[in-house]
Formats: sequence, structure tokens, C-alpha cells
Amino acid sequence: MKPDFDLSLYLVLDPDMCGGHAAALRTADLATRNGVTVVQLRAPEWKKRAWLALAIELKALLAPRGVPLIINDHVDIALAADADGVHVGQKDLPPEVVRQLIGPDKLLGLSASSLADLRGADTAVVDYVGVGPVFPTGTKKDANPVLGVAKLAELMAEKSLPVVAIGGIGIAQAAEVIAAGVDGVAVVSAICAAADAAAASVQLTAAIAGAREVAA
Amino acid sequence: MKPDFDLSLYLVLDPDMCGGHAAALRTADLATRNGVTVVQLRAPEWKKRAWLALAIELKALLAPRGVPLIINDHVDIALAADADGVHVGQKDLPPEVVRQLIGPDKLLGLSASSLADLRGADTAVVDYVGVGPVFPTGTKKDANPVLGVAKLAELMAEKSLPVVAIGGIGIAQAAEVIAAGVDGVAVVSAICAAADAAAASVQLTAAIAGAREVAA
Repeated sequence: MKPDFDLSLYLVLDPDMCGGHAAALRTADLATRNGVTVVQLRAPEWKKRAWLALAIELKALLAPRGVPLIINDHVDIALAADADGVHVGQKDLPPEVVRQLIGPDKLLGLSASSLADLRGADTAVVDYVGVGPVFPTGTKKDANPVLGVAKLAELMAEKSLPVVAIGGIGIAQAAEVIAAGVDGVAVVSAICAAADAAAASVQLTAAIAGAREVAA
Repeated sequence: MKPDFDLSLYLVLDPDMCGGHAAALRTADLATRNGVTVVQLRAPEWKKRAWLALAIELKALLAPRGVPLIINDHVDIALAADADGVHVGQKDLPPEVVRQLIGPDKLLGLSASSLADLRGADTAVVDYVGVGPVFPTGTKKDANPVLGVAKLAELMAEKSLPVVAIGGIGIAQAAEVIAAGVDGVAVVSAICAAADAAAASVQLTAAIAGAREVAA
């Protein structure tokens, strides 16, 4: 059965930004004790043996907490680590191919940076969409043009799947992004590069909850 | 059932070196009409959607010729394209993990650059070993130290699996490499960067056959 998932605070874990394998595990531990609801492992520069070792340890850490582990791009690593899902971009394996490989019980996320991408997400195949970059970001080398919050809100009027917003979102931006109509915010450096990953997670969680109260 | 395979002349197809998707298909076509016995697709800089598109076309080209298509590193692409096998290095997914993902009917190759690597290749899991680099090469950025032909011959005394030698092997080197006791030679630039891929394949095939006659 497909796991329940809550996109509220979605950590894209960059193990290099965290300081390596052990530091990434520590960050994931602190983050998920303090509000992070999903962890995606993304290490585009890593060889797969190192990816797999970290994915297996993350899975063991997160499963008892009910926090899904998503693997970026590499379906083979997701399968080998029995991760909870895969996240792909528009140039990665097509979602329908990924779905065939992972079966019906795993989560599948797709990145979208335009209305065309958003409309192209097959709701029978994809479980959620990551929309961005909302703000400028230095994390992703091949990022698309920045959307901005107004454009994000426009896109949200068209959404047919849960959406997590990504790209340059920190504590100061989380509330306005939530107000634009997304289901959650994805962060990389706001937690991975934070001096205190626990405190950053708490503050992000509070910002998201506050924005939802205002909207309700 | 696992396909028969003949390592004699093993083309590692670098689509960028060939000149892109269409040029890589052309190279594979000419090469396999002129003696190449295995094709491995290796495009470490490519996104997976482009990999998959090329892998599917290569499979359609090569299958009727009985030439196995091997995918470097990415088990997910091999599964999606129904390729004939996967080739992994020492830092890629461990062979036993790959074998679980691909099942018993696909080929699995492992790179080795030392006696320890060679002895570490589980003959119940791995089908062949790629040993190198024999000579200096500019193709692989993270290549191990050069073995040389004498060291290669030493290693061959220890082999328990079919071996294809790789690294800086061109028409001038093929014969001495075969004489060192390997089952075949793998080339990248000797065909991908050749002015005439067909002629290069014919000459390599002749060099290999000639060296075998001498040895016999």
C-alpha cells in the first residue's frame, strides 16, 4: 500500500552540504524530530555505492517515525534501499517508466517549473509535484528560471495534485509560499546549511503552521 | 536465459564522443556490422531521459544482430530499456545488489583494476570482468593507475571469469593485450573517435584474430 505522506515540510537532503554521510544522518535525525515530514536524498555528485549506504541508513532512521524517504532520480537506488518513493525531474526517466519500475505502492514525485509541466503530470502515475524554483537558489546548478510567488499562486489555481514548492525558500519565505496555495515547502540549505538544523526545522514548521492559520 | 556473449571486441559507446544521439547510433551500426561483439552505453554526463531514448534505439538495432547491449552504472535504465546487462565499477551499486535487481537472465560486468578487485568478483554473481586501465587514457576522468601489459598478464593468471581489457587500447595495442591472456578488448576512442568507425572495427577485429592465431 502506498504510504501516507504529508508534504508540509519536505527536506531535500544534500549530504555534501550537510558535511558528508554521518552529518547527513544527523541532520535528518534532528530535522525529523523537529517537524520535517518527508526526506528526499539528493546527491548528484555521488557514486551509487555511497548513495545506497546512506539511503539504507536513512530508511532505518525514518521508517519508525513514519517519515517517507524519497530518492532523487535513481530508481535503482530506491529499489535497492526499499525507499518509499522516487522524485524525478523533466529530464530524468519519464514518470510512467518510473511507475512501472517501482510498482503501485511507492510514491512518485515530479518536478515542474511551468504550467505545461504541471498539466503534463499524469495524476494516475504521479503522487505529488514539486514546483519551482520560487526564489533564486544556488543549490541546483541546472535550475529553471525563477517563478516568484505571484506566478506560483497562478499555477496553484491549475493544480490537480498535491504540490510542494521549492527553490530559495527559508524561514522568511515559508509563510508567503504557503499563502500562495501549496501543500508544503521543500528546503535544502535552510536546514542542511543551518547552524542548528533542529532550530531551523522548528522555525520552518511554525512559519508553515502560522501561515495556514491565517489562510483558514 | 542469459544471452551468449563474446567479449572479443567490446565497444564502450560514448555518445558525446561520437557526436550525439544519432551519431552514436550510426557508430554502433557500423561497428557491429564490422566485428564489434558487445556494445556498452556509457554517458555519465547525460540525464536519464536521453540515456533511455538512446538505449531503446540501440536495443532495437543490436538485438537482431545478437549483439548484447550493456548499460553502464544505471540499473534502472537497463531495466527500462530491457537491455541485456549492466556494467558496474567498484564504487557503483554492489554486484550482488545489481544481480537482485536485474535477475538471473541478464549479464553483469564488473570493473577491476587490481588483484584484490579481481579476486573480489563473485563468480556466482558476475559474468565478466573489465580489467584496466591497461594504458593511459583520457576518456575516463576517474580512472585508476595504469596497469601495463606485464601486470595485466600477471593478473590473467588469477582470473576465474572472462576478462575484457580496457584503457587506451587502439589498433596498435590490441594484439599485445590479447597475448596477455584476456578474452577481448574494450575500446572507446579507437572506434568512437575514429574517422571511419567501420574501418577501425575491421582493423581491430583483424588484430585480435591475428593475435589469437599466434597464441594458438
